[in-house]
Amino acid sequence: MADSLSLLGIVGSLRKASYNRSLLRAAGEVLPEGVGLTIFESLGNIPLYDGDVEDAGFPEAVVALKDAIARADGLLIATPEYNYGVPGVLKNAIDWASRPPGKTPLLKKPVGIMGATPGGGGTIRAQLQIRQSFVFLQMPALLQPEMMVSRAHERFDESGKLTDDRTREQLKKYLAALCDFVRKTRAAAS
Amino acid sequence: MADSLSLLGIVGSLRKASYNRSLLRAAGEVLPEGVGLTIFESLGNIPLYDGDVEDAGFPEAVVALKDAIARADGLLIATPEYNYGVPGVLKNAIDWASRPPGKTPLLKKPVGIMGATPGGGGTIRAQLQIRQSFVFLQMPALLQPEMMVSRAHERFDESGKLTDDRTREQLKKYLAALCDFVRKTRAAAS
Amino acid sequence: MADSLSLLGIVGSLRKASYNRSLLRAAGEVLPEGVGLTIFESLGNIPLYDGDVEDAGFPEAVVALKDAIARADGLLIATPEYNYGVPGVLKNAIDWASRPPGKTPLLKKPVGIMGATPGGGGTIRAQLQIRQSFVFLQMPALLQPEMMVSRAHERFDESGKLTDDRTREQLKKYLAALCDFVRKTRAAAS
Amino acid sequence: MADSLSLLGIVGSLRKASYNRSLLRAAGEVLPEGVGLTIFESLGNIPLYDGDVEDAGFPEAVVALKDAIARADGLLIATPEYNYGVPGVLKNAIDWASRPPGKTPLLKKPVGIMGATPGGGGTIRAQLQIRQSFVFLQMPALLQPEMMVSRAHERFDESGKLTDDRTREQLKKYLAALCDFVRKTRAAAS
Repeated sequence: MADSLSLLGIVGSLRKASYNRSLLRAAGEVLPEGVGLTIFESLGNIPLYDGDVEDAGFPEAVVALKDAIARADGLLIATPEYNYGVPGVLKNAIDWASRPPGKTPLLKKPVGIMGATPGGGGTIRAQLQIRQSFVFLQMPALLQPEMMVSRAHERFDESGKLTDDRTREQLKKYLAALCDFVRKTRAAAS
Repeated sequence: MADSLSLLGIVGSLRKASYNRSLLRAAGEVLPEGVGLTIFESLGNIPLYDGDVEDAGFPEAVVALKDAIARADGLLIATPEYNYGVPGVLKNAIDWASRPPGKTPLLKKPVGIMGATPGGGGTIRAQLQIRQSFVFLQMPALLQPEMMVSRAHERFDESGKLTDDRTREQLKKYLAALCDFVRKTRAAAS
Repeated sequence: MADSLSLLGIVGSLRKASYNRSLLRAAGEVLPEGVGLTIFESLGNIPLYDGDVEDAGFPEAVVALKDAIARADGLLIATPEYNYGVPGVLKNAIDWASRPPGKTPLLKKPVGIMGATPGGGGTIRAQLQIRQSFVFLQMPALLQPEMMVSRAHERFDESGKLTDDRTREQLKKYLAALCDFVRKTRAAAS
Repeated sequence: MADSLSLLGIVGSLRKASYNRSLLRAAGEVLPEGVGLTIFESLGNIPLYDGDVEDAGFPEAVVALKDAIARADGLLIATPEYNYGVPGVLKNAIDWASRPPGKTPLLKKPVGIMGATPGGGGTIRAQLQIRQSFVFLQMPALLQPEMMVSRAHERFDESGKLTDDRTREQLKKYLAALCDFVRKTRAAAS
């Protein structure tokens, strides 16, 4: 029997009806056995990163994020693409969580990146950009498969339920690959 | 006599003693004749981008940013690099200012990008990433020269004054090139 | 009456039945009045870039490419995406044409980038990568619209003819925008 | 005793006195015990990638490259940066070696990326670009440390010998980290 595994889900959008939030919820329905997924729901409480504030002490919401990351075996990010790049909301959370250097819980934490968008392109650019941050943070990121959901409005219903079976099947395979990747990364690091 | 020109300076860091704020201030001392530079000082008041909030109306700080952008002939961004990418603080401001699509004051606004960092590399990665957003927003960005300040702690004194003459000379040439670029871009658009 | 304008087309693939070659040929059929498009057909004769060879003198095929670039008012590149990046074939041609620094005919030459692919994504990654080279070479690249053709096999027939009317209309608008961009760039530079 | 390990070195420049060739040679002098490094010396014989040629059969030089990659436990690339990007010479070799999809010897092969340049920046941009190709090819690339050698002319003598002790020490640590990474990647895959 495989060891249990806990994933922390992070949504790159604050919108309540975000397709990426819906995508993460759908991920929670197709997890391999023994795997848990917790979605971090308080990204909107994190202030803008400010080094002066950091010097005075990490804000409570940042501590909560860092703790959640530290507890997780791996991360699962679902993000839209804003202006051909990573949403500031998501990058700001990563900037905070990356502090202080060398002691951040992000260090070497394995990660998977997904993205959903009503348009085409499937958040390709945002995903490639965030991978650059993971090079710096030494975070092994799943290479393949990738999970890019274009024309999201055709795949989720109004309640945010994933109604497209092909996407659900793809998501299931993605989660299986990610969990395998997280397990192997942990084993190699120990 | 050249027409007067107004630039809006935007700092990618909220830290009071930010090298990038100091770099923008130094830029204000080497402007070509007839050019004014206003530094937008309230980036820290802008909330995290949230589409639901946007639907209810733009927050006051965002309106102030959009108005300042609309009034300027061109933008001058000075930004650090966080985690091999654009700081979330800066990207968040751009994400807000980019709304609504098609009517954003960023559309086709000419821009120059600078960066200062205590390390090496001079914010190369952050600058390349933000250029991607400017492709989407149709913002002509000055190609060359580029302004990348490495080992910033050796070039500014404790009060934030630029003490390195070579950097000051480089900055002066950069501003001359940027203003020429903004003028030509405006002329071509009219 | 608008001045005449000459574009040089460069294909990033050597395959005879390349969709990108077909796309460039289709571009030749929807040019604005007064605009000519010549496709550079000899990219396959250009050797791999070698600084030692350059020191001994530019190879004939490279001289031909550089001359063709020098004669053109603007470039129109149509390229596939190989391994999430710019094809080596295309980059190699640019590397040669970029020499010697400061005297390359690429310097400040306006350019448009298109791409066709049988898959999805429309060569997004390759196009973003090649834009980085144009920052270095000071080449103004058309920002919007972009021309990305996915599922190319459904849009061209076996003889390479563009059969999809929507793509043809998009291409026509793209060429009109590119020619306008090239004209304004030249006017601003003079 | 650690198992023996064989690395294949690939130089992104064809110039005989290339700093990157020198860097790879210096790497051969600081290998951990039990590790061998073979430099692939025939990149210049590889023709430009052409899908029609591939259909008729892989050229001899490409077969040699693919065989060398298949025999190696990991790759070590040393590359200059041309025009803010990956040299066409190197990308062309990767484009050939990546064929056919699914059966390429590059698939899942661990890799380290180094770069030397006479200028500043240390090939940052080229290294980030080539990482994108490795996402597609499912090639685990060492995250940290990175090996970027700026002002290479001050660190190698005229015969190409690495004379800078600090760089040599950095290179030794890099090789140790890379070999550890290759070993763990192989173990995790088995």
